Amino acid sequence: MTSIGFIGLGVMGLPMATNLVTSGFDVSGYNRSRARIDALVQRGGHAAASIGEAVHAADVVITMLPDSPDVEQVVAGENGVLASSHPGQLLIDMSTIHPDVSRRLADAGAAVDVRVLDAPVSGGEAGAIEGALSIMIGGNAEDVAAAEPVLEAMGRTIVHVGPHGAGQTVKAANQLMVAGHLQLLAEAIVFLRAHGVDLDGALRVLAGGLAGSTVLERKAPAMLASDFTPGFRLTLHHKDLGIVTAAARASGSFIPLGSAVAGLVAALVARGQGDLDHSALVTLVEDLSRPAS
Amino acid sequence: MTSIGFIGLGVMGLPMATNLVTSGFDVSGYNRSRARIDALVQRGGHAAASIGEAVHAADVVITMLPDSPDVEQVVAGENGVLASSHPGQLLIDMSTIHPDVSRRLADAGAAVDVRVLDAPVSGGEAGAIEGALSIMIGGNAEDVAAAEPVLEAMGRTIVHVGPHGAGQTVKAANQLMVAGHLQLLAEAIVFLRAHGVDLDGALRVLAGGLAGSTVLERKAPAMLASDFTPGFRLTLHHKDLGIVTAAARASGSFIPLGSAVAGLVAALVARGQGDLDHSALVTLVEDLSRPAS
Amino acid sequence: MTSIGFIGLGVMGLPMATNLVTSGFDVSGYNRSRARIDALVQRGGHAAASIGEAVHAADVVITMLPDSPDVEQVVAGENGVLASSHPGQLLIDMSTIHPDVSRRLADAGAAVDVRVLDAPVSGGEAGAIEGALSIMIGGNAEDVAAAEPVLEAMGRTIVHVGPHGAGQTVKAANQLMVAGHLQLLAEAIVFLRAHGVDLDGALRVLAGGLAGSTVLERKAPAMLASDFTPGFRLTLHHKDLGIVTAAARASGSFIPLGSAVAGLVAALVARGQGDLDHSALVTLVEDLSRPAS
Amino acid sequence: MTSIGFIGLGVMGLPMATNLVTSGFDVSGYNRSRARIDALVQRGGHAAASIGEAVHAADVVITMLPDSPDVEQVVAGENGVLASSHPGQLLIDMSTIHPDVSRRLADAGAAVDVRVLDAPVSGGEAGAIEGALSIMIGGNAEDVAAAEPVLEAMGRTIVHVGPHGAGQTVKAANQLMVAGHLQLLAEAIVFLRAHGVDLDGALRVLAGGLAGSTVLERKAPAMLASDFTPGFRLTLHHKDLGIVTAAARASGSFIPLGSAVAGLVAALVARGQGDLDHSALVTLVEDLSRPAS
Repeated sequence: MTSIGFIGLGVMGLPMATNLVTSGFDVSGYNRSRARIDALVQRGGHAAASIGEAVHAADVVITMLPDSPDVEQVVAGENGVLASSHPGQLLIDMSTIHPDVSRRLADAGAAVDVRVLDAPVSGGEAGAIEGALSIMIGGNAEDVAAAEPVLEAMGRTIVHVGPHGAGQTVKAANQLMVAGHLQLLAEAIVFLRAHGVDLDGALRVLAGGLAGSTVLERKAPAMLASDFTPGFRLTLHHKDLGIVTAAARASGSFIPLGSAVAGLVAALVARGQGDLDHSALVTLVEDLSRPAS
Repeated sequence: MTSIGFIGLGVMGLPMATNLVTSGFDVSGYNRSRARIDALVQRGGHAAASIGEAVHAADVVITMLPDSPDVEQVVAGENGVLASSHPGQLLIDMSTIHPDVSRRLADAGAAVDVRVLDAPVSGGEAGAIEGALSIMIGGNAEDVAAAEPVLEAMGRTIVHVGPHGAGQTVKAANQLMVAGHLQLLAEAIVFLRAHGVDLDGALRVLAGGLAGSTVLERKAPAMLASDFTPGFRLTLHHKDLGIVTAAARASGSFIPLGSAVAGLVAALVARGQGDLDHSALVTLVEDLSRPAS
Repeated sequence: MTSIGFIGLGVMGLPMATNLVTSGFDVSGYNRSRARIDALVQRGGHAAASIGEAVHAADVVITMLPDSPDVEQVVAGENGVLASSHPGQLLIDMSTIHPDVSRRLADAGAAVDVRVLDAPVSGGEAGAIEGALSIMIGGNAEDVAAAEPVLEAMGRTIVHVGPHGAGQTVKAANQLMVAGHLQLLAEAIVFLRAHGVDLDGALRVLAGGLAGSTVLERKAPAMLASDFTPGFRLTLHHKDLGIVTAAARASGSFIPLGSAVAGLVAALVARGQGDLDHSALVTLVEDLSRPAS
Repeated sequence: MTSIGFIGLGVMGLPMATNLVTSGFDVSGYNRSRARIDALVQRGGHAAASIGEAVHAADVVITMLPDSPDVEQVVAGENGVLASSHPGQLLIDMSTIHPDVSRRLADAGAAVDVRVLDAPVSGGEAGAIEGALSIMIGGNAEDVAAAEPVLEAMGRTIVHVGPHGAGQTVKAANQLMVAGHLQLLAEAIVFLRAHGVDLDGALRVLAGGLAGSTVLERKAPAMLASDFTPGFRLTLHHKDLGIVTAAARASGSFIPLGSAVAGLVAALVARGQGDLDHSALVTLVEDLSRPAS
């Protein structure tokens, strides 16, 4: 039985680790706050008292952390993953971070004979719970093949998209498109409401035509109800759009809509709404439009 | 058997009229160029020598024309639909025009006891051929009920969204979202190509996650292949975005992404690409980005 | 002595008419509200009881009105300027309106042998009071020559920029640039304040370099003090930017910054700030930024 | 007589150092390419064979280099300024770099008792030659007082705007405004040309009203003549706008126009126009507009 060390048991990590347990893997989990480890133990996993303990006996190590600096420290820092690793181990970083950091960590892994993949996910908390995530993987083909049985316990669409960092690049494109789709939906809703149109019917017919999207299906109800319980926090989407705009600048890619929506997400965070779900983009559109009568 | 006068047998109108014939309606078609009328006759319809002849014996009149002035002239002009109509007729305008024009025509119809609906469609030439259009209807509920058997021969998602003009408003929102989704897809493709990612895999995984959209499914292959055979011409989308931006301005709706993409579509038309499919938005993004090596 | 009929004695019109009186012209003024006429009489002008009375004995008629429909009605409507005119009269419309309307009115004037100029102004209330307006004129050269002695009483920079409508086109470009300069200044102020920079010193050094502008000189103090007493109301600038964006669309001109700032001005009007001075653009930037600590 | 070590004798640095010589300072210059040092010697300066030699005997060291990494290496690198410095020296960095780097260098200087100022300039090559630069200074007041006699040889508007880094922040705001003013001017020119207006007259009247700006005065002739000899290269402005957008993101400042023009400048660089003057923004507007007939 493959044994897995899982580091980072947050909103996404805990249900992902739970699905690994359910699929029959032997999972040792570590998290900074002990309560999340206990939750995994209740679901059939084991507790690790430190990163080292989670890594020591594992065949595969998975990291699922908030941001680039977190991953750099947990993987390459003192008492981190690489410090406790043994040659031949496979490290799958499923966090959303900057592609350059993923490439650096792959190099650092190679230096101690640890194989590294960047494998960020899309699909949100719901996708994590249902084991229905989309997983985009950067790295070597043989390592991807080795990772697949593990990833299949957590995701439905699993694609090897290129060399180290490529998974993060695709995730960046994903976050660009999702933010844009959310903002366009928000604009459409405010526009339709201003004209006194029946919104339920309108969104139904929009969903059935060329304007249809997964964002429209999943996020329109929250926007109509002004229910912005996360879900996916604006602070995190703001972080991701920072990666997108930096990578686009570096590669000379013209992304005017991506850049504009990054500015709107930043504005929401700046005015204190960062802990709301990203569908709260609609509140900014509402605040800058004539109130519907 | 319900008899239908169908005016406007273009790229959309001919297959729509054909589906009415196939569904058992008695269809008399009129078009400015005789060749399109002949094409309808070959598919089982009748030829009308004038607007008046198409309208005279019809229970239901359908118009499917390029732009607001065309519809105004064909419906309310000399020798137009209303001039040849008889009380109680039902006129379904399926063109995409300005909501204000739809409201004016509804008033003009009411003055001569003709019931008018605005019922623009989404789904493109493919949807017209397959009878799978989305149809968004503005007007009175009893008239919508009367129109439904006819509309069901042409569309799959048929929704009454509000009073006169509401169909056009929803279509405007549709065009806003579609243009935005196309541009975001174009930005994502150029971004991914610049980073050397496997594009087929990347688009597959994007389609499976929260970034999924009908535009991604249907238009990504054309963008990747640089095949911009219309489809839906940029000139028409440009016209539609003129309606969107004017209506948003009038209602005080803040649509920054809609406004930005309207500017990009206008730029493509200005530099002579108006006869290409709207997926050609990707060419502008490519021209303003560093060429992929 | 040249006699002048002056129609429209608002914030701009009254001081302009007053400067004509001061320069020795015989001015008969008309305005919808009687109080403004009385104010002109106190400054040495004559009262006209109607448009017709203002026009009747005048050598030159000047109109200074809020918007295109006002000008169309006052000039070409029933009991309007043209209805009371005599052949050879010179009509100088100094309102800011759509270039197409100016061209229509020039044609309507020509039909009754009235020579028409469009001569909108820049410089605001202060420029009107000081007789220091910039005046941009569209029309025939000989008519411009005839108008110059009159215009010199009101303005300092007086330029014939092209045929009928050209004055309005240049005014549109002026309003595009002014709105953009205001918004850029607002962005710079919020940016500088967020970084704890000494604002007075910073604006002084910016004014001395390539970033210098008339907007920076005249409007920065109001922005720093949050004093948005008009001055030039946002509702009027919003109207003008509607002319700009429509004319740019019609001519196929790519104006991404103009279009973006038009959206921001519209947002301010939509949320009820239309009666503030246009320097209130800074409030929107502040509301979408992190509060300076 | 104050002795000055001047490092970086490029388009800006050489005329600045020359003005110091002319004002009576004893200037030792260093540059990577020997030809620039020779040019300074011809103008009355001394040649330094290394950074160390330039620094060794100097009372004041000035650096004028292209980008943040250059300054970091020259100042804090091996055999750099600080390595050759003696306690009490004054280092004035007049390069345009990221404010965070300026703050780091000030700390590094303090550790070896070297007083550091960030003092970037505005005014371009012309301002450098004429000794008419605007200079914005961040640092301690007593150090600014000590630097003033030196700075007055190079600039006309010299302002202490705040603590370490503040000079760079103001320079960033300057570059935001200048890029925006250039783009707005480009939009206005293309708009006016499309409408057949007399451009010389139009720009004269715009300059006289609220739309006036230093950019309009200095850059309109180049735009009209399509003469894009630098001047200030787009690659450098692109670098500066990277500083602006990063600093705005970090401080939560909403800069939608700044962000949009940064994207346009990046597009020009991406398509290979980076070595043109920044007034070449007008070429992009032209390429995305209908050609004037």
